[in-house]
Amino acid sequence: MTPSATPIRALVWGENRHEKREPGVAERYPEGMHEAIRAGIEQHLGAAASVTTTTLDEPEHGLTEQVLAETDVLLWWGHTAHHEVSDEVVERVHRHVLSGMGLIVLHSGHFSKIFQKLMGTTCSLRWRGEVDRELVWTIDPTHQIAKGVSHPIIIEEQEMYGEFFDIPTPDELVFVSSFSGGEVFRSGCTWRRGHGRIFFFSPGDQEYPVYHHADVRRVIANGVEWVATDRARRALPELHRYYSGEYFENADDHGGPQAGPSE
Amino acid sequence: MTPSATPIRALVWGENRHEKREPGVAERYPEGMHEAIRAGIEQHLGAAASVTTTTLDEPEHGLTEQVLAETDVLLWWGHTAHHEVSDEVVERVHRHVLSGMGLIVLHSGHFSKIFQKLMGTTCSLRWRGEVDRELVWTIDPTHQIAKGVSHPIIIEEQEMYGEFFDIPTPDELVFVSSFSGGEVFRSGCTWRRGHGRIFFFSPGDQEYPVYHHADVRRVIANGVEWVATDRARRALPELHRYYSGEYFENADDHGGPQAGPSE
Amino acid sequence: MTPSATPIRALVWGENRHEKREPGVAERYPEGMHEAIRAGIEQHLGAAASVTTTTLDEPEHGLTEQVLAETDVLLWWGHTAHHEVSDEVVERVHRHVLSGMGLIVLHSGHFSKIFQKLMGTTCSLRWRGEVDRELVWTIDPTHQIAKGVSHPIIIEEQEMYGEFFDIPTPDELVFVSSFSGGEVFRSGCTWRRGHGRIFFFSPGDQEYPVYHHADVRRVIANGVEWVATDRARRALPELHRYYSGEYFENADDHGGPQAGPSE
Amino acid sequence: MTPSATPIRALVWGENRHEKREPGVAERYPEGMHEAIRAGIEQHLGAAASVTTTTLDEPEHGLTEQVLAETDVLLWWGHTAHHEVSDEVVERVHRHVLSGMGLIVLHSGHFSKIFQKLMGTTCSLRWRGEVDRELVWTIDPTHQIAKGVSHPIIIEEQEMYGEFFDIPTPDELVFVSSFSGGEVFRSGCTWRRGHGRIFFFSPGDQEYPVYHHADVRRVIANGVEWVATDRARRALPELHRYYSGEYFENADDHGGPQAGPSE
Repeated sequence: MTPSATPIRALVWGENRHEKREPGVAERYPEGMHEAIRAGIEQHLGAAASVTTTTLDEPEHGLTEQVLAETDVLLWWGHTAHHEVSDEVVERVHRHVLSGMGLIVLHSGHFSKIFQKLMGTTCSLRWRGEVDRELVWTIDPTHQIAKGVSHPIIIEEQEMYGEFFDIPTPDELVFVSSFSGGEVFRSGCTWRRGHGRIFFFSPGDQEYPVYHHADVRRVIANGVEWVATDRARRALPELHRYYSGEYFENADDHGGPQAGPSE
Repeated sequence: MTPSATPIRALVWGENRHEKREPGVAERYPEGMHEAIRAGIEQHLGAAASVTTTTLDEPEHGLTEQVLAETDVLLWWGHTAHHEVSDEVVERVHRHVLSGMGLIVLHSGHFSKIFQKLMGTTCSLRWRGEVDRELVWTIDPTHQIAKGVSHPIIIEEQEMYGEFFDIPTPDELVFVSSFSGGEVFRSGCTWRRGHGRIFFFSPGDQEYPVYHHADVRRVIANGVEWVATDRARRALPELHRYYSGEYFENADDHGGPQAGPSE
Repeated sequence: MTPSATPIRALVWGENRHEKREPGVAERYPEGMHEAIRAGIEQHLGAAASVTTTTLDEPEHGLTEQVLAETDVLLWWGHTAHHEVSDEVVERVHRHVLSGMGLIVLHSGHFSKIFQKLMGTTCSLRWRGEVDRELVWTIDPTHQIAKGVSHPIIIEEQEMYGEFFDIPTPDELVFVSSFSGGEVFRSGCTWRRGHGRIFFFSPGDQEYPVYHHADVRRVIANGVEWVATDRARRALPELHRYYSGEYFENADDHGGPQAGPSE
Repeated sequence: MTPSATPIRALVWGENRHEKREPGVAERYPEGMHEAIRAGIEQHLGAAASVTTTTLDEPEHGLTEQVLAETDVLLWWGHTAHHEVSDEVVERVHRHVLSGMGLIVLHSGHFSKIFQKLMGTTCSLRWRGEVDRELVWTIDPTHQIAKGVSHPIIIEEQEMYGEFFDIPTPDELVFVSSFSGGEVFRSGCTWRRGHGRIFFFSPGDQEYPVYHHADVRRVIANGVEWVATDRARRALPELHRYYSGEYFENADDHGGPQAGPSE
């Protein structure tokens, strides 16, 4: 509600393999899916966000310590090369999320190492690639992420993702989708982990032009605003020892003592 | 995050009886508790909020249809005269909350008619008025309502409120308090009802200067921002009939059809 | 898991109006819908439950203080005569639920006075009576209520109920349904209120033989087991005053002190 | 509620290091903490449970594939040797939990590899070993795990664990504790992960005779009943492909198709 002095620094991470190998995908997304996602965020947030992109094939997948330290919100699209993402980078991203970086996981990113690590579950689901129509229904109309979108969002052509979706119970269930075949899916979910926030949004297969869809772009832009937190500094929750009567009273920091001994 | 063009219109409703009858309370809150609450909101939100006050003894308790229609966030402090609030006004406030008005219920307001009606439970608790020290611990450090406050908030003198607190499971549990006597209490809770948001915050008895406490004022100001929603128009969720293949696609409205028959 | 010495006393409350007035409904449910519901519970729970029925037109709607005091689980089916249920009886049922009686609300019971009073919301939804096929998907496979049922449950003919369903966020979301027309609905939800448990299950319109469906009967029987609690005695949560250092330690009672002062 | 034909097979896993090395602990728990935990379960569940124990120093830590396949509920107490638990065994336990085995994590087990892996967070907290009195308050009086215990449970001497506790929002918050020093802690929490259920209960440090406490034993026995599920067979949630109009209808299995193609 109050004006934010500095723009949200969002980074769209794209696997960028389908785009290089499959003509249909390349035609649909000439600059890569990550660039379409970026364009959607910029369209809606304008000067309120500063959006960059990077891809799997960059050194350290483009996710160095310095890059993450300067990122408020990371968006993740991966599918065919989850196993190529190094465990070291996954650990790093995990640490940044728990320390306060926002994370948006898109579509087939449900099977990414980072999502599985944060969820603690298999993140498996049922699926079908047969041009279903997906309807995305808003279950929580007061949620900022649902702001300004149609009810339902109609996506004419999509891959089907269905329940049972093996995830922890979402902290907030924002959207539920149905598919032509009759399946349902918790398609918009949020979780809080450590000092960070996570949003999973399922629409968006490489085989369909979903990231050009007006409402999908709006949801992702809303999500960027929602997962961003404006903590004074990024800090991993840590074990700390406190003597009797000793409390910690520094504003904006819930992770450690002002000074003194720790185990 | 993005600048809000128009300030949040907040209205602080005060029962204003203790202040008139008890010299200690009058000394503590010379202009009434509602004015102290207003001052705290203005201190933190400045031009981002436009804050007014009204009291029980105004015609219709100061809560006419027109007043509520022009209120984004209503704050409620009552204690000794819950039964004097007319059922008609309670129905009106209830309808506005479900239609999208934010509501903050403070301290002994847990036994107000409007809170009980929204919760569906007795809202009973255990209590003691013996100058306990209250410590308010942040359980959800990513929540906007906890932004910028000490962990814990230390309130040197307070009435004790303890569990079991007969409320629906909160959608979000932001704060849990402990008291000198060893009791615990879910002191900061949010719920979503209809198109509206509700925040209950328990610190704040008339016998102690709690609404002059810096952190308490910050929490209430944060709460005003959190419960405010910026829907295009206020609308009560309603029953609607849809024929097959007929969907409703108007942005910002999740309550009814574009046109056509309803039961 | 452990054997229960005494059977669960379940009472099925039926409005019993459609059955009397409409030949199709009477043919479908010759002894009334409430008797079909009873038969399903008995089929699955056998000696573990003792099931009776009563209807709107009985004195006090068959829900006297004594009847409720001897009821562990109340099931509620109403539709066309919600307004004929007296407020006094609604207050009584409400008090018993908060005191520990289990409640199952079925289908059009979403608009009953007792459900609205417990939820605090309008409980409105979208609907259509055009012979949709309903698929009921299990979202929480560890839940007792989902035990032994197909995934999905296929109901060939049903009324459509769709989102937005104006209810509090369920404590547990067990089932989500889709309909031929593409709508979704949170069709199996639980809440805890006071000392009682509530289960809402939406399949079951008078126009279709849904209460003869094997899986629907199983879900309702599972629900009876889940909402039943075995507290030592039924007690409404109440306000109680405790002096410093005074705690209450009586097992099985979380509502009040063993003796001593209260406000 | 209904009698269970076969007893719950519970396995208490103890790290068993403090007991061997520290005379005070050995005196307090002559047969090891795991045996005290076992005795408490047997005391309350009797023939309804069959309880065994194993420890870190057994081959494969006593947790072979066959042992886990024959375990309905695993209880975990570890502290000083979390790092000695092999990653292979952790993966195995993780798989069994997601496949339907119940898990109870006790006290310092919050920092075990298995708990961190299931939670996806650091599981860090604040602590102090200075003989605090802990009061365990029931927040959810309808929960089976709270059945029959005092409100509050009074533990005269305990290690302090305080918030912020870096865990996912519990699916159910059953207990909240306070400590002499004024800290609060979410001391009884449940989560559902995959097809399994998890209960964390914090009372129980090796320095104090907490597992001889009547109420603590009752809570753990209640927990064993609650985390046990009686699925027809143990199965990990898996990715499966379904063609249009193809559903899976086998009772008691929500993880895969009856037959046919999968990715």
